[in-house]
Amino acid sequence: MQNFVQHVREAKKRLDDLIVPTSLAYAPKLSQIAQASVYLKKENLQLTGAFKIRGAFNKIASLPQSIRQKGVIAASAGNHAQGVAYSSRHFGIPSVIVMPEATPLLKVGATKELGAEVVLAGDNYDEAYQKALQIAQERDLVFIHPFADEEVIAGQGTIALEMMEQMDNIDTVVVPVGGGGLIGGIAGAYKALKPSVRIVGVVAKGADAMKRSFEQGHIQKVDSVRTIADGIAVRDVNALNFELIQKYVDVMVSVDDEEIASAILFLIEKQKLVVEGAGAACVASVLRHKFDINPKENVALVLSGGNIDVSMLGLIIEKGLLKTHRKMKFEVCLVDKPGSLQNLTDILTKAGANIVQIDYDRTSATLEYGDALVTMALETKGKEHKELVFEQLRKNGYHFKEIN
Amino acid sequence: MQNFVQHVREAKKRLDDLIVPTSLAYAPKLSQIAQASVYLKKENLQLTGAFKIRGAFNKIASLPQSIRQKGVIAASAGNHAQGVAYSSRHFGIPSVIVMPEATPLLKVGATKELGAEVVLAGDNYDEAYQKALQIAQERDLVFIHPFADEEVIAGQGTIALEMMEQMDNIDTVVVPVGGGGLIGGIAGAYKALKPSVRIVGVVAKGADAMKRSFEQGHIQKVDSVRTIADGIAVRDVNALNFELIQKYVDVMVSVDDEEIASAILFLIEKQKLVVEGAGAACVASVLRHKFDINPKENVALVLSGGNIDVSMLGLIIEKGLLKTHRKMKFEVCLVDKPGSLQNLTDILTKAGANIVQIDYDRTSATLEYGDALVTMALETKGKEHKELVFEQLRKNGYHFKEIN
Repeated sequence: MQNFVQHVREAKKRLDDLIVPTSLAYAPKLSQIAQASVYLKKENLQLTGAFKIRGAFNKIASLPQSIRQKGVIAASAGNHAQGVAYSSRHFGIPSVIVMPEATPLLKVGATKELGAEVVLAGDNYDEAYQKALQIAQERDLVFIHPFADEEVIAGQGTIALEMMEQMDNIDTVVVPVGGGGLIGGIAGAYKALKPSVRIVGVVAKGADAMKRSFEQGHIQKVDSVRTIADGIAVRDVNALNFELIQKYVDVMVSVDDEEIASAILFLIEKQKLVVEGAGAACVASVLRHKFDINPKENVALVLSGGNIDVSMLGLIIEKGLLKTHRKMKFEVCLVDKPGSLQNLTDILTKAGANIVQIDYDRTSATLEYGDALVTMALETKGKEHKELVFEQLRKNGYHFKEIN
Repeated sequence: MQNFVQHVREAKKRLDDLIVPTSLAYAPKLSQIAQASVYLKKENLQLTGAFKIRGAFNKIASLPQSIRQKGVIAASAGNHAQGVAYSSRHFGIPSVIVMPEATPLLKVGATKELGAEVVLAGDNYDEAYQKALQIAQERDLVFIHPFADEEVIAGQGTIALEMMEQMDNIDTVVVPVGGGGLIGGIAGAYKALKPSVRIVGVVAKGADAMKRSFEQGHIQKVDSVRTIADGIAVRDVNALNFELIQKYVDVMVSVDDEEIASAILFLIEKQKLVVEGAGAACVASVLRHKFDINPKENVALVLSGGNIDVSMLGLIIEKGLLKTHRKMKFEVCLVDKPGSLQNLTDILTKAGANIVQIDYDRTSATLEYGDALVTMALETKGKEHKELVFEQLRKNGYHFKEIN
């Protein structure tokens, strides 16, 4: 264990000149909800937008120069790809990143911009991974595993050292879990240096093999994964990471996509931070009280990364507006004659609701002749306002149905 | 001038225990675009999500206790409201915030949550302002002006002292300008302590009275303002602020709503930060090269706040996706018979484009009998991908028109 800490300390020395020491900042609103003191470790503001550069850089830096100069290869369409590409550029060595064929051009572009050669291969991550191993052998490149590697894990562990420097009275550290590289590094360093600190792991419900393995005491397999938290959508449990988690992690909890999406919106509104699904998982676990927190406890949540697709962000916002009653949708039956719609919009105007979408249907077979079905989306100011709109519609004799 | 710096130093002492010293962090992508070193002062991560708490708190703290305890009042639906409410709660004194009647319930709620009494009055800011002055007199409360107040300005000036501590080699500081409290404080402190530093002010094109006044040498009036940057949507130029800007600001530039919206999206994607329109104005000025920057210059941009309405954020993302070719819309003419749509979707599937919206029209009078007009929105992977989709449509004989 002391040996591991030594590795982490060496990693920190290697990283000190390169990376940003991200802040560990008090979060007032989350603290209020948790009834404790909650702090956010903002690795979403790290270089390349995620912690992954720590492990990738440390691994590449720890290679003997004669081997490193031949170049490295990795399989990833996400944060690990950028970490490996960035670090390789730093050392002036070639890097190859294998990504599944369906990877968005933007991610391909971002990785190429960092100087990497991108190879598109396979229908999914596993196929890209196999292709990367094959190219590694053919071209004599070092394969950089995203999590099942001691130097990668030691690199991620530098977050723990940084946190200990920033605050010496953290009681609980909450970490998202995919392959387990991040939590392995953080938990290993904390349990060696401050063993009283509780480590909580958070998996996505749609990719919970590690949690089930942890609970069963041996590795569990799943056939497929599905979650909006692509950074922790890892299918297979690796023995090295599992062992670390079994040894050092105290609690494992899971959060579903709806909980993660709410946490992403919460972070945007209350913390002004863009955080990807994996990074928001920890916040979701606190918002939904997934584990016990004592009052006066100092709880630190690791926001692992911020690389979320903006289309996804747009969807999360749109759905979030509906869920929080700042947008409402309903269908209402009107008499299909001049002035009908005007009467309706008149009521909505008086209620102060802004119409943002409208559909007028007079031809569906289920409608009586002379009736029309209008579907509307309105911008509202919250739950009370929505109720007011419905009340006004009722009072004026409209038959309507809310759509969600 | 030394007198002013003394005020700012006193303000900093008052604020030190309360507020967060926000980071001044290197921005790699912006630096690349500006061909210089660009740093971001992240006041969007400040308590209450904006710098305004600095000025409000300093003003309230500087009042003699006998006067302060009677309570304070302000007119604002935005960041100043939260700053005043938060500071009043800190001192345990009553606060009244007057907001225009149309203020979203959420903003009302957020201010009430901080312990303020909210009065809804007037159709616009001016009417709320008048009402606040009236209540101040009736109830013997101190009116806290959002910008035309020396202690408020000194409070905002603490940002400059903080920046000087964080970096001693800044060459240019870029600050958003609405009423001018923020830039007055920052410019005043810099020009007293480091006069070589260039101060650039950025106004919104739809609220540019201060820029025009600066250029004309005397106060210019405008009838109305319109910009998505509500934090700097100030109509009237105040003499106190104008004088400071005339004295200490070197350059004034303006950015329009489209430029501001692009900057907001840029900050989300590249910096993982949520920044409101006013805060993004500085970034827009750099992205669009609104003033000259020398290579090797160190440029600091003040991200003044992050309190943007999420509906607005959703709109900015949606429009941004279209502008950056990650979404495309087009209408295409089909023969109105079974299999027609299938043929079209088949081509789109092969091109790897995801259909996210569709409208089928066979009844418009302009259509030939037997024709149908289909309007579609697709998710695409960038400009090249969009071109590929159009090429495939052309190749298969479709007549289409892009919609934007």
